[in-house]
Amino acid sequence: MGEFDLIARLVELVRGAGAAPESGGRVIIGSGDDAAVTEPARVTATSVDALVEGVHFRRETAPLESVGHKAIAAALSDLAAMGAAPGEAYVQLGVPTDLDEAGAVELGKGLAAAAAANGVAVVGGDVTRAPVLFLAVTVVGHAPSPDELVSRSEAEPGNVVVVTGELGGAAAGLLLLDRSDLAAAAEADDLRRRQLAPSPRLAAGRALASNGATSMIDVSDGLGGDALHVAEASGVRIAIDLERVPVQGGVAEVADAAGVDPVRLVAEGGEDYELLATLAPGDLDGARAAVEATGVSLTEIGKVAEGTGATLRLADGSERETSGFDQLRR
Amino acid sequence: MGEFDLIARLVELVRGAGAAPESGGRVIIGSGDDAAVTEPARVTATSVDALVEGVHFRRETAPLESVGHKAIAAALSDLAAMGAAPGEAYVQLGVPTDLDEAGAVELGKGLAAAAAANGVAVVGGDVTRAPVLFLAVTVVGHAPSPDELVSRSEAEPGNVVVVTGELGGAAAGLLLLDRSDLAAAAEADDLRRRQLAPSPRLAAGRALASNGATSMIDVSDGLGGDALHVAEASGVRIAIDLERVPVQGGVAEVADAAGVDPVRLVAEGGEDYELLATLAPGDLDGARAAVEATGVSLTEIGKVAEGTGATLRLADGSERETSGFDQLRR
Repeated sequence: MGEFDLIARLVELVRGAGAAPESGGRVIIGSGDDAAVTEPARVTATSVDALVEGVHFRRETAPLESVGHKAIAAALSDLAAMGAAPGEAYVQLGVPTDLDEAGAVELGKGLAAAAAANGVAVVGGDVTRAPVLFLAVTVVGHAPSPDELVSRSEAEPGNVVVVTGELGGAAAGLLLLDRSDLAAAAEADDLRRRQLAPSPRLAAGRALASNGATSMIDVSDGLGGDALHVAEASGVRIAIDLERVPVQGGVAEVADAAGVDPVRLVAEGGEDYELLATLAPGDLDGARAAVEATGVSLTEIGKVAEGTGATLRLADGSERETSGFDQLRR
Repeated sequence: MGEFDLIARLVELVRGAGAAPESGGRVIIGSGDDAAVTEPARVTATSVDALVEGVHFRRETAPLESVGHKAIAAALSDLAAMGAAPGEAYVQLGVPTDLDEAGAVELGKGLAAAAAANGVAVVGGDVTRAPVLFLAVTVVGHAPSPDELVSRSEAEPGNVVVVTGELGGAAAGLLLLDRSDLAAAAEADDLRRRQLAPSPRLAAGRALASNGATSMIDVSDGLGGDALHVAEASGVRIAIDLERVPVQGGVAEVADAAGVDPVRLVAEGGEDYELLATLAPGDLDGARAAVEATGVSLTEIGKVAEGTGATLRLADGSERETSGFDQLRR
């Protein structure tokens, strides 16, 4: 299958995704011209994210449909962390010679399903040969004004730290995928799905943005590292109480079976794609109600203080400084 | 060097590029947050383009600085073909373990120089491990209204076909890079530079857009294949007279030395990143003057008629149908 056939097949597969009603932008020219032409809202948020075979996934353990899904979801998680409404996606594929048409269809289905599920139109892309499969995704979100978006850099001393949903599931799912010897927890399927097909918290992100979030980031590198990113960008100190962090069901069992400290899965695992935000204490109840209305929980897990760095307080009362998680060391 | 160091180093290198005065958009939050936030013009044109080591370049023959340059230039060429004003760029890098800091600096310099030369701000990116070096670039251009952008699909029977600049140079340059045995033409350096560090015709594209171009595409796959893309998108027939196509100096000598038909370099080589456009005959003189004011020539090379397909007329008077160039077969 040549490039144009493959593009045509992939375009056909993602076309069903369409422009979502919640998109703030209007697509004037979609896929197939030199560039996609859109009429955006007043402000756009744009983020890029790449998945590379052998680095971020292995085809032996990750079905191609989930690879397509995750590429879109991981990119959109950054828009969720700004509080932007999802708009358009652009997908650059590097395709190895051992990916056949059936594989391309599976990949395309995952891309299309994730785009449709999250209200995104795939309006451009590029397919090229490559020695391994890679997906480089660009997503554009919209907002009516800059004030409605939330950066990492405005957390204030006195704020509370909150997190959506539950953590640790993606890291536990990865352990289950990599080690078939682990006794399967009752929640094994949920945990593997959390790793393979995460859900970006777009609605929760907009709820937080419009209910007082002073800073926000998605938990993609790991809770400790992402808290540190916010602390550094905002010039504050963040203290997280790990005992208060909601842990996904089955994570403790998987950690136990694997002989891994569960704290590592919860605080360092990353890829849960939940949102970590800061709020004035007076905004907490309103934000919680707004986030819960999107079907996701919101939990207070720490405090913002003057100073620098980020700490995690463990069950035994000890505190440890967090450091950034470095993907290039993977 | 870890991811964050490498990102920091690359951000530092491209920061000099800055937002250009000609950008229609305003950058509110640049690199370093979850997403870049911009206030775009009313209409945006967005395109993506990837370069993969071993497919689009080889590190043995392409200096890393030129790889960075070309990745930006090739992506911008698609915006030139829409007539959009360049705005922002996002760069996703796949970095193999054998790229050291000096290599990253060279690559970053090329990215920064090409961004600066073309009035683009690099406001986002992503660095990840990969088995080979790849660069996946997203560029966003701006226009005050959809009417000021030119698609591929509005060429009309009776239009003339024009091309900017000279063709064949990039393909001849590639031959020179790949085959050190070729007797060097006097213009060898120019030809190699044309392959390694092309110039997107952004100003010429805007001149054509505002002087009656009915359709436009950049010559990236090859003159014949790109003419066919326009013919198919517009539902017309395009006939190009190859004898009228301006050929870059030295191309004939390189073709002769390599034992290659020069027609292949001019019509099928691709990567010259000139613009192919269609115009009503009455708009030709005005468009030529406007394009020449940007320092680039504009030459009439063919006609648009009713029908389908695209033909190249050779020096001996014979005509041949063109077919799309398929990058996956490389």
